[in-house]
Amino acid sequence: MQDVLVRTLEKVELHQPVLVEGLPGVGNVGKLAADYLREQLGAKPLATIYSKFFPPQVYVHENGIVRLVSNDLAYWKAPAGALHDLLILGGDYQGISPEGQYEITERVLDYCAQLGVKQVYTLAGFAQGRVVEDPKVLGAATSAELVETMKKFGVVFSRSDPGGGLIGASGLFLGLGRLFGMEGVCLMGETSGYFVDPHSAGAVLKILSKVLDVKVDLTALEEKAREIDKIAQRIHDAEQRTGEPASSGAPGAPREDLGYIG
Amino acid sequence: MQDVLVRTLEKVELHQPVLVEGLPGVGNVGKLAADYLREQLGAKPLATIYSKFFPPQVYVHENGIVRLVSNDLAYWKAPAGALHDLLILGGDYQGISPEGQYEITERVLDYCAQLGVKQVYTLAGFAQGRVVEDPKVLGAATSAELVETMKKFGVVFSRSDPGGGLIGASGLFLGLGRLFGMEGVCLMGETSGYFVDPHSAGAVLKILSKVLDVKVDLTALEEKAREIDKIAQRIHDAEQRTGEPASSGAPGAPREDLGYIG
Amino acid sequence: MQDVLVRTLEKVELHQPVLVEGLPGVGNVGKLAADYLREQLGAKPLATIYSKFFPPQVYVHENGIVRLVSNDLAYWKAPAGALHDLLILGGDYQGISPEGQYEITERVLDYCAQLGVKQVYTLAGFAQGRVVEDPKVLGAATSAELVETMKKFGVVFSRSDPGGGLIGASGLFLGLGRLFGMEGVCLMGETSGYFVDPHSAGAVLKILSKVLDVKVDLTALEEKAREIDKIAQRIHDAEQRTGEPASSGAPGAPREDLGYIG
Amino acid sequence: MQDVLVRTLEKVELHQPVLVEGLPGVGNVGKLAADYLREQLGAKPLATIYSKFFPPQVYVHENGIVRLVSNDLAYWKAPAGALHDLLILGGDYQGISPEGQYEITERVLDYCAQLGVKQVYTLAGFAQGRVVEDPKVLGAATSAELVETMKKFGVVFSRSDPGGGLIGASGLFLGLGRLFGMEGVCLMGETSGYFVDPHSAGAVLKILSKVLDVKVDLTALEEKAREIDKIAQRIHDAEQRTGEPASSGAPGAPREDLGYIG
Repeated sequence: MQDVLVRTLEKVELHQPVLVEGLPGVGNVGKLAADYLREQLGAKPLATIYSKFFPPQVYVHENGIVRLVSNDLAYWKAPAGALHDLLILGGDYQGISPEGQYEITERVLDYCAQLGVKQVYTLAGFAQGRVVEDPKVLGAATSAELVETMKKFGVVFSRSDPGGGLIGASGLFLGLGRLFGMEGVCLMGETSGYFVDPHSAGAVLKILSKVLDVKVDLTALEEKAREIDKIAQRIHDAEQRTGEPASSGAPGAPREDLGYIG
Repeated sequence: MQDVLVRTLEKVELHQPVLVEGLPGVGNVGKLAADYLREQLGAKPLATIYSKFFPPQVYVHENGIVRLVSNDLAYWKAPAGALHDLLILGGDYQGISPEGQYEITERVLDYCAQLGVKQVYTLAGFAQGRVVEDPKVLGAATSAELVETMKKFGVVFSRSDPGGGLIGASGLFLGLGRLFGMEGVCLMGETSGYFVDPHSAGAVLKILSKVLDVKVDLTALEEKAREIDKIAQRIHDAEQRTGEPASSGAPGAPREDLGYIG
Repeated sequence: MQDVLVRTLEKVELHQPVLVEGLPGVGNVGKLAADYLREQLGAKPLATIYSKFFPPQVYVHENGIVRLVSNDLAYWKAPAGALHDLLILGGDYQGISPEGQYEITERVLDYCAQLGVKQVYTLAGFAQGRVVEDPKVLGAATSAELVETMKKFGVVFSRSDPGGGLIGASGLFLGLGRLFGMEGVCLMGETSGYFVDPHSAGAVLKILSKVLDVKVDLTALEEKAREIDKIAQRIHDAEQRTGEPASSGAPGAPREDLGYIG
Repeated sequence: MQDVLVRTLEKVELHQPVLVEGLPGVGNVGKLAADYLREQLGAKPLATIYSKFFPPQVYVHENGIVRLVSNDLAYWKAPAGALHDLLILGGDYQGISPEGQYEITERVLDYCAQLGVKQVYTLAGFAQGRVVEDPKVLGAATSAELVETMKKFGVVFSRSDPGGGLIGASGLFLGLGRLFGMEGVCLMGETSGYFVDPHSAGAVLKILSKVLDVKVDLTALEEKAREIDKIAQRIHDAEQRTGEPASSGAPGAPREDLGYIG
């Protein structure tokens, strides 16, 4: 079979489209942000991406219907006079092997290049290993001009973070994007790394919506953040009472895993 | 070499054939059911599937003769007036890498599509992690119509199971089958997950034979189930006497492994 | 690069050539036997096989000169009137991934088929997990006729061994060989599995030389076997004295590893 | 995408160019030496090599700008009358799978062959597992003539080292280079294996510069070596005081890992 298969659902003409990528990763920040953006804008399905570099898996919906795991491109046509239409990439998984990550990213970029994309925003979480009350949004970009522009929007460029660079889709879409002549920015919301973090996703979206000059109502996301906070608090309280991690019932399971309750 | 090699043994014309898949997996339920169906119907060999995504292995029969590991398609011509001929896919292994699973499934589906297949039934086990006296058959399907039809045959569609979706051939044949325009159903027999489970395979076959309107005598399968029950009982008794798992002689071996005595 | 690259060193015409395969494996029995056969017959280099499925490694000879790891085909022209010329396959490694094993085996078989090979003998060790004083030679074959013929030469066909089939090149050359219309036999010398075992290799060669009607002087191989026996004895004695394995100085190293001193 | 993508930055004609390879590895000796040589000679960027066999990663510079991981070829035009121009290969990673190593090496060699390369020098470290005060430079080569020539330059050819051969790029460039008709030498600086070792890189460069008849000022490299020595000494002192490894704060981290502080 083809390594990566892109199924176009609708043929569209887009005006100087910008690609926003948000796939599962640290704190699921990128995916939460991209999915929320898509929902709030009412972006429409454009293409489904299947690949042998995803797990051999179908999801089963509550109604019993199966769906092959995929990535998905949606498009949003901006109001007349706006600078850019949007393409939003979300999905179930990143490629599960290094080679797969390259293959999928390259194929999606090629597809987007044909739609006229020249700019990419990748959304991600940045794990701090500690609770983050007021998450900053860290940045990395493909040019000095973009770095300066982003600083004006409140993005933090740190000399030391991310020290080891960016691993996975959020980095690769910028790095390979250059080979397609695209400029790009990675926006990383600080997060503990222990929980799915809608709070951090909100911080990322707040900046992104300004950058893209798009209105996004963050109320529902903040509501979700409060719910997660409550669950985290309850786990914490339980541990205080028993004197040991609440997850101790599952021997061998690292405590952090429990946290993924989004 | 070709990634997946399909060797056709006989050229046949089939009448609206339906594909039934049953490969090794949880409790070997799918494989047991498909192999038994094939045997009872006297289905004939149609094609052998070799692949570099199977282990590099030959089996040695009791007579000393070797056979390269493979998957196998058999066909069954239904009596005149019946709706569907059958294709039955069985074999020694599923592909041993995620990519291999995609490649093999896609190749077999492509082959079946050329034979006119439009419907797929995949058979599997669903591990409950506890002894299951009277196994239900859980389902997942590609459309709401199929879900409703299956319910009438006694298939259970649960909101929570299978929570993580279906991994492996039984899911992939449905998910990729959609890309070939095929509809499909996965039938999952509840099983402990500790033993090869002909009992669960029988539950699956009982429903499948009604769905396909095919007569299958389940006597021999039930006999096999009773044998396995006896062995399980003996192991259980031995443990009771010694106060520890009967398998404790093999240090480091998980107890469940012992159970695969089919 | 090509997945598997066969470099022909000399162009030859061979008379009904038979392929003998012996690559590294259990007790190195197959490799020892094939290399010894090649040396004793004075077989000449025919082709070198390189592959990305071997480790990315060069060997450095004592004189400081490097050599890329490979497999190698040698040929031997039998005296006039003999039935078969020989091709002997040896080498540094088997393919290091399952897919690689398939790719390399298929490529070599294709090459051999073009030279007229219709029969394959694969040589291997069969690990008994205990010291074997007088190793039997177990067999597996592609046809009932070959099984009967081999029995006459003293090859043992056991109902239970090898229970799990044959994994690796020795099985694959038979299994894939069938797809090239070749018949074949695997000869497995019993061995402990702890030591490189020239003694077992000798038992295999004794039978193979009768089967192929080729004279092979086994003196040097037996001498090597005696040396290994002495080393094993010394290790055993040292353990008796100290009350613990002689290899205990290297924490974590399994004792059996020590044994590979051929 | 292409498995390995070579982007030429400038079109050049080179005079009998010699390839010098130095990629990350033991003590980073090879990379340090190649990078330093490139810097000292003021070699110019010729081509960038991207590959799906590298990690899916971008580096983020201190100024916030990302760069996709790569290997890089630089060229240096020797003064008129000199025998050879130089090509210098450096980079962030070696291929991360065995197959990837073969693919990348073969592609780079093919590119270099088209530029006229007939000779390759690969630079590496040789781990002694103990502190090495005055590192020797061990060698391996593709011909007896080269071995003799290298001995005159002080390269040590040892009967026992490297016992297991060379694994990775430094070996593969010689082994695969032969298939392109190239001769080659591997120069291995002795090193502890615990630290990034500019001292060992200096020893390698001292010999290489004589072999290539190129002047290289080693002052800055020696300065870096002294800094590393100081850090190592401080770690050692801290351990003496506390009676345990200074790295004990990071449970589970092997002590040697700490040493990579270049």
